[in-house]
Amino acid sequence: MEKELIFGHQNPDTDAIGTAIAYSYLQNKLGYNTEAVALGNPNDETAFALKKFGFKAPRVIKTAANEVNKVMLVDHNEPQQSVSDIEKVSVTHVIDHHRIMNFDTSSPLFYIAEPVGCTSTILWKLYKHFNVQIPQNIAGIMLSAIISDTLLLKSPTTTSDDRQAVEALASIAGVDYAEYGLEELKAGTNIKSKSEEDLINLDAKSFDLNGKAIRVAQINVVDLSEALTRKSALLKTMETTSSTDHYDLFMLLITNVLDSDSVVLICGSNEAKNVFEHAFGEVHDSQISLPGIVSRKKQVVPQLTEAFNLEVNL
Amino acid sequence: MEKELIFGHQNPDTDAIGTAIAYSYLQNKLGYNTEAVALGNPNDETAFALKKFGFKAPRVIKTAANEVNKVMLVDHNEPQQSVSDIEKVSVTHVIDHHRIMNFDTSSPLFYIAEPVGCTSTILWKLYKHFNVQIPQNIAGIMLSAIISDTLLLKSPTTTSDDRQAVEALASIAGVDYAEYGLEELKAGTNIKSKSEEDLINLDAKSFDLNGKAIRVAQINVVDLSEALTRKSALLKTMETTSSTDHYDLFMLLITNVLDSDSVVLICGSNEAKNVFEHAFGEVHDSQISLPGIVSRKKQVVPQLTEAFNLEVNL
Repeated sequence: MEKELIFGHQNPDTDAIGTAIAYSYLQNKLGYNTEAVALGNPNDETAFALKKFGFKAPRVIKTAANEVNKVMLVDHNEPQQSVSDIEKVSVTHVIDHHRIMNFDTSSPLFYIAEPVGCTSTILWKLYKHFNVQIPQNIAGIMLSAIISDTLLLKSPTTTSDDRQAVEALASIAGVDYAEYGLEELKAGTNIKSKSEEDLINLDAKSFDLNGKAIRVAQINVVDLSEALTRKSALLKTMETTSSTDHYDLFMLLITNVLDSDSVVLICGSNEAKNVFEHAFGEVHDSQISLPGIVSRKKQVVPQLTEAFNLEVNL
Repeated sequence: MEKELIFGHQNPDTDAIGTAIAYSYLQNKLGYNTEAVALGNPNDETAFALKKFGFKAPRVIKTAANEVNKVMLVDHNEPQQSVSDIEKVSVTHVIDHHRIMNFDTSSPLFYIAEPVGCTSTILWKLYKHFNVQIPQNIAGIMLSAIISDTLLLKSPTTTSDDRQAVEALASIAGVDYAEYGLEELKAGTNIKSKSEEDLINLDAKSFDLNGKAIRVAQINVVDLSEALTRKSALLKTMETTSSTDHYDLFMLLITNVLDSDSVVLICGSNEAKNVFEHAFGEVHDSQISLPGIVSRKKQVVPQLTEAFNLEVNL
């Protein structure tokens, strides 16, 4: 069987890396020949989870077509979030829980998307569907992915499927998910050791919204005010990056994983900032508090998409 | 529960209409409030199948947003094959077996695609997944859809899943699938009663291939030479339609459903015809024989897509 690579999005998080590992295990059991790789190194939270369950970080690739003809994607579909030469390979399988955008194929493929909190929740259902037993360490990394994406089941993206998956996987992995989950989330909140550039790239995704290039980064913390002591340095780095990479809007969500609140720092063109304010309210001094907003996918991107579409119709 | 419409593609075939009916039944059992509708009247083959299993033709809609906010798609995803105002409604569910192209959403959704011969084969697996019993008439219309799309399991798109589904559904429906299948396919081959305009629109899909507008129509017959007595009239109508609707290339596959061979009639710009010839060989007098070619999706569109992509790189 021809080898295929499996990977999640750029700036990988625990879902991108954990689900790639767990999907590769399943697909190999089903007769495929796959290797889980990553488009970047694990962040602190993911490194914590990998270590906890005895995994090494997947090999990092910059391009895919030099190795394989076919790939499988997890936790993303938009080409600008994928491997740099995605247009040179065939995508044969996707499992994802995001909107579908600019994802074009020339042939039919396997594609499973569900609006659940985490890709590993879909994967957990696939394991059941194919009647494949989940090993303890695979269950642990899938559990870690769901805890990460749902902020320990507190994000509004959380569904009853995510809750069921967490309970079932925690039982297989042999951990108390509430206790382990808090440790895992806290492992990702150490911002002291990181430069501003690290912080704005840690978990950042690009979106094409009606022709505008939007960058939405997110960092998790346990103390918003501590993070905001670095506000001016963060904004300066965001502005430099926006200028280099031609973003019309750069948003940094600083999310308190204990309280489920966020503060957003924002920079960009006046036009793009106006659209942002149309969706989220007035920005003061490049900053806005968004209580209860923790999900880029459910509470930020759809609202921005609508606002940018509206803008063109004005 | 807010009402949603379920429909297949324009110029509906037995998969588009039959799977919409059968998916609506399943979704309503699962607690959704859906109605199966269609983007056109049933063709002769579909009308035969509907009558055989006691269904009325679904209501035909021209637009969706005047009735509902949300829709579910079967057997297609490309917007130019969908309802005219697809951009005004939210797509919440898709089940399909085609490539994904120009399908963009602002929010996550349920999307299931598999490279199998027919959407009803995926649906048959969904019924099993949700443990919902398939009524006899629903099994009959799903069986009809698979027979239609796979040309009675002879198309190269046919997979082992399609074969399993046909056997299981025929058993529930209480028919001999080989005998019923031949009757069904033959019911769709009566071209005598149809105008040239009818014939080129019966089962026609548009594709955007690297910026070129391509129309690929297909008719099923039991006698190729009989169909070719109308060649010049068919070509004239294809040329008129291409000019009105601005197609760069118009192909008509005339497929013998008994022998699994096709003859293609073709008109379009010299540039587009050159690309076609690059993919399929030399065209003589606007005509080419393609033995063994019966599947637009697997044997025509990917080859054309590649040829048109290559063209731009020359």
